[in-house]
Amino acid sequence: MPHRYFTTEISGGTAILRGKDAHHLSRVMRAKLGETVILCDGKAVEYTATITGFEDDAVTFSVKEGYPSVAEPAVEVTLYVGYPKQDKLETIIRHGVELGCAHFAPFFSRYCVAAPKKEEQKNARYNKIAVEAAKQCGRGILPDVQMPRKQFRAVCDELAQYDLSLFFYECGGEPLRTILEQVQAAPQHKRLKIAAITGSEGGFAAEEAEAATAAGAKAVGLGPRILRCETAPLAVLASIMTLTGNLE
Amino acid sequence: MPHRYFTTEISGGTAILRGKDAHHLSRVMRAKLGETVILCDGKAVEYTATITGFEDDAVTFSVKEGYPSVAEPAVEVTLYVGYPKQDKLETIIRHGVELGCAHFAPFFSRYCVAAPKKEEQKNARYNKIAVEAAKQCGRGILPDVQMPRKQFRAVCDELAQYDLSLFFYECGGEPLRTILEQVQAAPQHKRLKIAAITGSEGGFAAEEAEAATAAGAKAVGLGPRILRCETAPLAVLASIMTLTGNLE
Repeated sequence: MPHRYFTTEISGGTAILRGKDAHHLSRVMRAKLGETVILCDGKAVEYTATITGFEDDAVTFSVKEGYPSVAEPAVEVTLYVGYPKQDKLETIIRHGVELGCAHFAPFFSRYCVAAPKKEEQKNARYNKIAVEAAKQCGRGILPDVQMPRKQFRAVCDELAQYDLSLFFYECGGEPLRTILEQVQAAPQHKRLKIAAITGSEGGFAAEEAEAATAAGAKAVGLGPRILRCETAPLAVLASIMTLTGNLE
Repeated sequence: MPHRYFTTEISGGTAILRGKDAHHLSRVMRAKLGETVILCDGKAVEYTATITGFEDDAVTFSVKEGYPSVAEPAVEVTLYVGYPKQDKLETIIRHGVELGCAHFAPFFSRYCVAAPKKEEQKNARYNKIAVEAAKQCGRGILPDVQMPRKQFRAVCDELAQYDLSLFFYECGGEPLRTILEQVQAAPQHKRLKIAAITGSEGGFAAEEAEAATAAGAKAVGLGPRILRCETAPLAVLASIMTLTGNLE
């Protein structure tokens, strides 16, 4: 399988790879003129690219017509995730990218145990983790990790932009199977935008659940076993991808 | 919600809790005579129990008629998991118990990076992790972690005992949705026993894939994104539980 790199510099039949990836390809992989790699533009389009030159800190290519990245799911999922303790958010991001999540939006809510601290710095690190995971698992986009919402209300205010908002609630709700069957039975005119909301260690306050459903989210149950806050998002993503045919 | 403990000493309308759990209930929780807790026999039967006495290192109860534990899935899944590096097996066990796995059977295979080392000791630790996870998430049984199979052939030799064996293969296979739809369409006379097989970092050799399918396993694909060896088992368990209605 040819190596695969992300670059935004693809146009008019040529492309350039710079920085660490260029170093990796030329020095570590010792690629030669005429060898082919896969370049991805980070917007789910991939190109078969032939090496035409090595420059200081850059590799140039001629590219053929692009084709859609096969690795991108047909649904665009934003994971709204209650800010967990320790380094659990890193685990969630790493696994979540592999499972096809497009955007991560952490939030603080009433019963969050974690408190905001050096979030700018942490966010840079989270995004780096997401990019590395995207490269490793072969994604066609680079999923982003957004700055945490300071209150759960901010999450609710954003839900109108989604085709479907799912509020995963420890007190139960409709089965995900039923909800997704209904949604998929309706004719699809575009890529479905889904918001999936899961809580932190402390769970949700009853008012938060009410606010989410008032904002249009459907309460969804995850069954009788108590999932920890780092297990739930992964179970949720795996379930959504399975039920929409994006994990097969 | 009343506290919940596992004990095997339940019979004739009475029960006894010993050791650490007895200490926890009497000293940490400072429970009083007449208070009620839930006792689970570890075989998916639960009892509402009323405290009748405190002894040295034990608490005694009167119990009402048992009822089936609601937390146990209607399918009995054995996860055959390729032995991973570092402490990844611990993560898989912890999350796997929450997701409803009944048995964990690690194995070494041709491309395993990990090598057997102090497995007796490690197995004791793995089982402790499984028990702790089972308590935390409210399981009705105590899932067991078995000693690792030394070769993949041993896994294949065991598959005849399952109603359905699923070989999750990086080279693809049938969608899990299709397989489980067919299985569930047939009348169920008993609890379905499923073997789910996932690989280690190195994946499977072609001969191993052939041996698994020759032994009756169905090759199943997990889609175009490359799942790491610790993500795959969790995705697999979440998918199986979702599609069989055990995660809702």
